[in-house]
Amino acid sequence: MDIDKIVSELSQEEKVALLSGADFWTTVSVERLGIKPMLLQDGPHGLRKLVDVTPEMEAAHQSHPAVCFPAGCALASSWDRELIAELGSMLGQTARAEGVWVLLGPAINIKRSPLCGRNFEYMSEDPYLAGELAAAYIRAVQAEGVGTSVKHYAANNQEFRRMTTDEIIDERALREIYLAGFEIAVKKGRPWTVMAAYNKVNGSFCTENEYLLSHILRDEWGFDGFVMSDWGAVNDIVAAVKAGLELEMPGTFGTGPAKLLAALREGRLDETVLDRAVSRILDVQNRVLSAKKDAVSYDKEEQHKAARRIASECMVLLKNNNNLLPLETVSAVAFIGAFARNVRYQGGGSSNINATKVDSLVDEFSAISSSSVSFAEGYTIDDNCSQTEKQLIEAVECAKQAEVAVVCVGLPETWESECYDRPHMKLPESHNRLVEEVAKVCSKTVVVLFNGAPVEMPWIDKVDAVLEAYLGGQAAGGAAADILTGKVNPSGKLAETFPVLLEHNPAHLYFPGEGDKSVYGESIFVGYRYYDSKKIAPLFPFGHGLSYTSFDYQSIETSAEEIKEEEKLIVRIRICNTGSRAGKETVQLYVSDPQSSVRRPEKELKGFEKIFLESGESKTVEFVLDRRAFAYYEPAISDWRVESGDFIIMAGASSQDIRLTKKIRVISDFVMPPAFTPNSTIGDLLAHPYARSAGERIKKDLLSEGGPMYPLWVKNRRMAEALLEDLPLRNLIAFSGGQFSPEDLDNMLTALNSTKEQ
Amino acid sequence: MDIDKIVSELSQEEKVALLSGADFWTTVSVERLGIKPMLLQDGPHGLRKLVDVTPEMEAAHQSHPAVCFPAGCALASSWDRELIAELGSMLGQTARAEGVWVLLGPAINIKRSPLCGRNFEYMSEDPYLAGELAAAYIRAVQAEGVGTSVKHYAANNQEFRRMTTDEIIDERALREIYLAGFEIAVKKGRPWTVMAAYNKVNGSFCTENEYLLSHILRDEWGFDGFVMSDWGAVNDIVAAVKAGLELEMPGTFGTGPAKLLAALREGRLDETVLDRAVSRILDVQNRVLSAKKDAVSYDKEEQHKAARRIASECMVLLKNNNNLLPLETVSAVAFIGAFARNVRYQGGGSSNINATKVDSLVDEFSAISSSSVSFAEGYTIDDNCSQTEKQLIEAVECAKQAEVAVVCVGLPETWESECYDRPHMKLPESHNRLVEEVAKVCSKTVVVLFNGAPVEMPWIDKVDAVLEAYLGGQAAGGAAADILTGKVNPSGKLAETFPVLLEHNPAHLYFPGEGDKSVYGESIFVGYRYYDSKKIAPLFPFGHGLSYTSFDYQSIETSAEEIKEEEKLIVRIRICNTGSRAGKETVQLYVSDPQSSVRRPEKELKGFEKIFLESGESKTVEFVLDRRAFAYYEPAISDWRVESGDFIIMAGASSQDIRLTKKIRVISDFVMPPAFTPNSTIGDLLAHPYARSAGERIKKDLLSEGGPMYPLWVKNRRMAEALLEDLPLRNLIAFSGGQFSPEDLDNMLTALNSTKEQ
Repeated sequence: MDIDKIVSELSQEEKVALLSGADFWTTVSVERLGIKPMLLQDGPHGLRKLVDVTPEMEAAHQSHPAVCFPAGCALASSWDRELIAELGSMLGQTARAEGVWVLLGPAINIKRSPLCGRNFEYMSEDPYLAGELAAAYIRAVQAEGVGTSVKHYAANNQEFRRMTTDEIIDERALREIYLAGFEIAVKKGRPWTVMAAYNKVNGSFCTENEYLLSHILRDEWGFDGFVMSDWGAVNDIVAAVKAGLELEMPGTFGTGPAKLLAALREGRLDETVLDRAVSRILDVQNRVLSAKKDAVSYDKEEQHKAARRIASECMVLLKNNNNLLPLETVSAVAFIGAFARNVRYQGGGSSNINATKVDSLVDEFSAISSSSVSFAEGYTIDDNCSQTEKQLIEAVECAKQAEVAVVCVGLPETWESECYDRPHMKLPESHNRLVEEVAKVCSKTVVVLFNGAPVEMPWIDKVDAVLEAYLGGQAAGGAAADILTGKVNPSGKLAETFPVLLEHNPAHLYFPGEGDKSVYGESIFVGYRYYDSKKIAPLFPFGHGLSYTSFDYQSIETSAEEIKEEEKLIVRIRICNTGSRAGKETVQLYVSDPQSSVRRPEKELKGFEKIFLESGESKTVEFVLDRRAFAYYEPAISDWRVESGDFIIMAGASSQDIRLTKKIRVISDFVMPPAFTPNSTIGDLLAHPYARSAGERIKKDLLSEGGPMYPLWVKNRRMAEALLEDLPLRNLIAFSGGQFSPEDLDNMLTALNSTKEQ
Repeated sequence: MDIDKIVSELSQEEKVALLSGADFWTTVSVERLGIKPMLLQDGPHGLRKLVDVTPEMEAAHQSHPAVCFPAGCALASSWDRELIAELGSMLGQTARAEGVWVLLGPAINIKRSPLCGRNFEYMSEDPYLAGELAAAYIRAVQAEGVGTSVKHYAANNQEFRRMTTDEIIDERALREIYLAGFEIAVKKGRPWTVMAAYNKVNGSFCTENEYLLSHILRDEWGFDGFVMSDWGAVNDIVAAVKAGLELEMPGTFGTGPAKLLAALREGRLDETVLDRAVSRILDVQNRVLSAKKDAVSYDKEEQHKAARRIASECMVLLKNNNNLLPLETVSAVAFIGAFARNVRYQGGGSSNINATKVDSLVDEFSAISSSSVSFAEGYTIDDNCSQTEKQLIEAVECAKQAEVAVVCVGLPETWESECYDRPHMKLPESHNRLVEEVAKVCSKTVVVLFNGAPVEMPWIDKVDAVLEAYLGGQAAGGAAADILTGKVNPSGKLAETFPVLLEHNPAHLYFPGEGDKSVYGESIFVGYRYYDSKKIAPLFPFGHGLSYTSFDYQSIETSAEEIKEEEKLIVRIRICNTGSRAGKETVQLYVSDPQSSVRRPEKELKGFEKIFLESGESKTVEFVLDRRAFAYYEPAISDWRVESGDFIIMAGASSQDIRLTKKIRVISDFVMPPAFTPNSTIGDLLAHPYARSAGERIKKDLLSEGGPMYPLWVKNRRMAEALLEDLPLRNLIAFSGGQFSPEDLDNMLTALNSTKEQ
């Protein structure tokens, strides 16, 4: 396809038409020029191909049966790029076989609050983890010739008023937390499309936010696909196209194109902007077309098996006192709770899959275990998981008879969905009561949780083991059975912090904002960055996850003790499986900057590798850290900055289980350009390499004998020095006993600001 | 003095001269017109009258001996308006006798972080408490014919870069927290002057902040005195005078007046602005002159006695296990710690008093107790309170011999001062070690703390009693002796929260900002408002303080179950002294709004009364709550707003010891003026009395059978309703199946916004 030629042959009417959907799910075609309609369909953890793609409201209609894989909350807990890539390949093949051009995923918004209704679809509270996994997903899907759409760009961290709310985020938080995952996804994954979010960021809708869409996404990160809107996210299509949005979805019954045409004809929109947008859409069409090889097919049964294996890599063993799990030699196991039979495996909204079949945990466990198995439902699966006294009594009786009780609880399906946030972080009352009552009568109680986001666990000290199964897709029941029986050694690690109480969450005082304003008062202190810095102990920390074996972190080595900021640092961690079982461990690498001039988190994730080790086996994991691993975003220079100084490299089994540390030194030559004003302080001069000597002269003039501050210095040295440190240069006039004039100040500033080096 | 006449006779040169100090402490005089030089001198807890008022650097010079009363941190803990008024009268008499025209105080900045270097001078983390006490102080001083200067207006909550930092504070936090105390002080106290702070607030220096100085202070609050700058706080004198500042202090060797004159002559400054400023200064001069009656005298010995009595009303008994205190029948008491002899009683900087004499706790205790008394210094009073092994061993030996050990620790003098903040919240290592070691050998250990702000107490569970003596002025030693012996029954209550760890403080992640920007990310959640809402248990909560007797809160009654917002609510609390000793209790009244449309603190202090009760006596305390007690500040209408709904009235002995509650209802007729836009949501219509019916119509059209959202509603009712609730009206175009045009939207908005009532 010769894009330039096609664009030159398109009429203005055709061009504007191409920038808005043909219907709810398809792009506009121009048959005479070979422009095809492109079918865009929802993901991310399965293909939601609709039976009818042209209804008014997208979420209402039936989709074709497809295998439902684990949701983002679970997938991220795998910490496994290869596993995600495997899933991506299957999804890509499926989409291609079904004639889908772009699969709408992955979804990587930061889990700012555990209450966000779509958290189950998202990856993590940490942008590095989310970005790395998203990149693996994107590359794998696109390798099959199907586009992806990384979403929702950006900061769509709540469902409350998501179509109108303005997320007020300071520049460092935006860059270091909310954009950093997208940055990795775009740079490493190279997605063919990006989906602009509903919300505003700092006053401008994401769909018409030039800073986000053009300046950062294209100019800084080099994105070369097209940007589509989330469904219904366009506020002003002319502003949107100017800002860098290429495709309005869904179609607006001609309204969008008409507005573009009017703007074009009234000179408010340049035709080159239209041409650029059309070209970008066609370029992606080209990629899909040129990738299309032979027809592909896929096997839903095989995918179900894969879904089970993947799910078992995602579940997180939170607690396992006295190695109660796995249940290998247990005579009688009681499964308590309706979820044991009807597993909760996905959330509500656009990601909702019409699953081909759903595993029952009880059945799958029975199939592979020699234990005798009983079951009591304990509650009814409905909007609030109601519970009768009879159900509770039966459950307690059932538990009494068993050696081990496995209580399956979690969140009702309607509590986790697109379009609304949770109002609290609690389990249904019936579930908490069930756990409490069972734990009273059964001395060995295991809790299996099915939920898409953290919950409070008031009973945590009363149970022996907790397995977080998350929303594990249609084979979650089988996967949980594999872990409970020991067929699979659990290896998931939390991709988010579980706080003791919702109130401890960093966003608690702000989320979800008021009216159309959501202020991110916690700034960069999101997730573990907050709990670390505030010394608030979480229930389970970020990165936490137990195994049936044990790992010894044996040594940490670095390629150097000191590097220049442009050099790379290689870190090698040696780790040994000291238990009696084979297993996988995710080695987490954090970096800490204890000497920063700006406030920084105690530590930040900068590397992770999941490795398999036979019992007794040792391996060395290698990480390569570049300057970004040490940098913070400095708004004053609109760039990432590394400060010279010591950094601590930390290797850990979780964010609060650091096993090895090593101090290294990074040297930067960067100097802030001098820009002194009358309100620069004497301390500012002393701190700047070009101005230090001027500062020292002033200090001496003021403090030494005969100087105007000498008497104070004699009386209270510390106060005099602090006063001087923070004294603005303008005050030299009042505080120098008449010896310093406004002209002296002007001359000094001119000299300081023209200094190049000293 | 006929001010208009004088102004008309002043030359331009004289006028500009009057707006800048004559020297460091005196205003300019114009002898031919009878304008006197006015001497301004530091307070607030004693008169710092300098021996020489014209040196370059103010803090350097010796002041005349004066009685040092308890600092603000202690005074506020009295929760006693009458006590503060008594102090104010003494200070006013002293100032008048010494020829001082304006006493520079009270200082009521909010204790945002415990680290602020000047917290010891300030009152509270709560603006209501600070404002009420400041008003009492102001009225009392001014009744003696001496002006006050309430300071530092506004938000001077840190010493770090105080002369240049910009405090970024959202409007609600500014109004509800940082200005509310000044508002009460100005409205109820009617100070003759206000001191504009060094820092910026939201981008503009306080000295040139028209919003603060004119719009709020004068137009809203009715301030009718003059505004002076903090010493050296003027950045641009022309901008300052235009914004509403009248007096630059100190003088700037003619520079300030020259700039004003130039601006006047170049047409950048209107002469009427100058005239207004001069008139305001002369008006205050008039007040002092017309109040001057006969010469007054004062007695320093009497003031010392009063200082002791006042200090004993301020100290806070934090802990008293098994009623260890008072030490009435104890055979041997060991006083451990150099502070027991050389009491730490004031902080550093402009409030530092040249005390007439200083009580020793050991000596005063010995004088009134029958116990045998021993003493060991435990550490040396120096910059870090150094400690030798010998000192520690002697202290432990001394404690071993005694029945009760009273360990006197706190903060070294140089750790608390104007010009710098504390870097942490810990006691000196030597002090913590001393407490730990003494507690190991003495089964009855009392800690007496001398410090101006909260400290961490890692040893809290190992000691039996803790008395917070704060910085209690020169008679603090005697006052502490009075409490320890039981001569005085302690009645102080904390005016600030003591967190377990500094990290738990709400400002921890932000304080003191970076460069010249200090972002108040915690917004309105300052002090107990934060600990309550975050469910972080403090070490000692706001309002906490024990007594040697006990109080029973017997009943709460209100004048109505329901009021209109313009009506007053009377609350009566009946309280009984159920112990065997006479004592004082501060009844604290909090109001909670559990049904607000905006985020509000769990509760807020809206009333307090300190009452004296004989053993067995009951009294009823009456509070009058007006609409402000129920209101929050609503930026959208630039006014305080009361929302209709239930409120909880809480009476407590501390912010976390609520004894009685009562629910009442407040009815407001206020309706937000309709201002709907294409981004108003359907939920916004439903929530507005004038638009509700329009919203209902749209909801019906979309959700009922045949409507475009009906299929979704059938499938997932909760999601459909949430989607609809948050759907912006603009999306009706895309989501109404082509039935709703841009013109329909315009027409609907026009109709909605012109609706007056329905």
